[in-house]
Amino acid sequence: MKLFRFNGGRIGIAQGGDAYDITDALGIDTAMWPPVQMVQLIADFDARMRGIETHAGTRRIDLSQVRLEVPIEWPNKLLAYPVNYVKHGLEMNSKNRADRNGFFLKANSSLSGPNDPIVLPELPGREIHHECEVGIVIGKGGRNISRADAYAHVFGYACLIDMVVRGNEERVMRKSYDTFCPFGPWIVTADEIPDPANLQARLWVNGELRQDANTRDLIVDIPEMIEIASRVATLHPGDIIATGTPEGVGPVQRGDRVRIAIDHIGEMTLEVR
Amino acid sequence: MKLFRFNGGRIGIAQGGDAYDITDALGIDTAMWPPVQMVQLIADFDARMRGIETHAGTRRIDLSQVRLEVPIEWPNKLLAYPVNYVKHGLEMNSKNRADRNGFFLKANSSLSGPNDPIVLPELPGREIHHECEVGIVIGKGGRNISRADAYAHVFGYACLIDMVVRGNEERVMRKSYDTFCPFGPWIVTADEIPDPANLQARLWVNGELRQDANTRDLIVDIPEMIEIASRVATLHPGDIIATGTPEGVGPVQRGDRVRIAIDHIGEMTLEVR
Repeated sequence: MKLFRFNGGRIGIAQGGDAYDITDALGIDTAMWPPVQMVQLIADFDARMRGIETHAGTRRIDLSQVRLEVPIEWPNKLLAYPVNYVKHGLEMNSKNRADRNGFFLKANSSLSGPNDPIVLPELPGREIHHECEVGIVIGKGGRNISRADAYAHVFGYACLIDMVVRGNEERVMRKSYDTFCPFGPWIVTADEIPDPANLQARLWVNGELRQDANTRDLIVDIPEMIEIASRVATLHPGDIIATGTPEGVGPVQRGDRVRIAIDHIGEMTLEVR
Repeated sequence: MKLFRFNGGRIGIAQGGDAYDITDALGIDTAMWPPVQMVQLIADFDARMRGIETHAGTRRIDLSQVRLEVPIEWPNKLLAYPVNYVKHGLEMNSKNRADRNGFFLKANSSLSGPNDPIVLPELPGREIHHECEVGIVIGKGGRNISRADAYAHVFGYACLIDMVVRGNEERVMRKSYDTFCPFGPWIVTADEIPDPANLQARLWVNGELRQDANTRDLIVDIPEMIEIASRVATLHPGDIIATGTPEGVGPVQRGDRVRIAIDHIGEMTLEVR
């Protein structure tokens, strides 16, 4: 199932070519602030979704006619792993490695949706790079989750672009500009992904393929990312983990169009402003 | 005014020696998850507090008889500045400096309250340090807030201890263990702080004074912290900024008692487990 947000915080699902607006059926208040509606839904997903397709409040919609928004806007946290593909470590000449260094964070406020532009800050002389990543969404929270149990805590997956200004300031700050974490276009639930350790992720700039890698080449794989993170911090439903980028990162400019596509998940194309 | 959370997410205020439970008067649902009730209140504080002291639902309470909890549990983000006192930079032999490097983040899930223990992870041979800081709470959100306008965006202040495991992993991870951000015991609203640039903050371990510094010695002062952060990220009501620690950081052990006190704000004593 695909789970998405659209048209001002409405929530929808798509399955087998059919799409539904389930906002009213679930009694979701789109005006509630802060926007934690999707986090609430993920936390209690099975119970709240029972019988939703035949609920009187469920309306069929045409997915091509709605404006998709970032599926999760205010998680507890947005975790990210540093160098997690050997070849990216080489291209950056970096001493960081996900297996030795663990995770860092991006600001929740950097999350943006599949139809939002990436807005570059005015930083003359600075390169601003794209990083193509898989976003993991936590379903069942917990602490000290073992590698063996980790997949049972995954709700789903999405495309995620980790934008960063290159430079010497705190990396967390350089990665936390508003719109520096395009995420979407929806969350695909874990049951629809045949093998999370075999996901091909690609990123193009203006039609030119820049990044093309498979999660089988991750240094720290998905279960271990969850084990490492939850050894430190309680994970909550809706938390997002960015897997780290493969080689091929590079600068973007105003006017560029950045496209990301991941097998079994989907794709999105972002305008750079 | 002091604004606090207590006894399972109830919300109270204290003013001039009197304390009140305003949970029912405000119609706050303490069971709502995620716990964003205080963030919601701060976002609309003046309107929601109008006439609260004479509201029929307001109950007088004895502050000494309640169990205070962390005032903000699920902000949009918890920002922190690296070396922000010259002498702390010298003691750490650090190349970081808040004025050159900007901010980093701690995980929201590291926030804990004045009556919660600091729980040390099992990391044999590693030092775990206390850092005594002032916590700034954002009231009015915004982007690109100028230095001149910054104080108008501050809701209040609290004590904040920034716990950290020393080592070579990502600093963000080493600072994001659960209970590694004691915060409280309440938020003192900005109107009760005569001069935020003249706050003496002290920290003791087992009664021995370890840190004693004044916000007048900050390298990046409070208005500039807000200017720098909001140049990057939209600040939201309830966001917390940790100012950075002065010199005198040092290790804590299980069984220690860590006390922090800041003039005009208050104090809290945490047990280390």
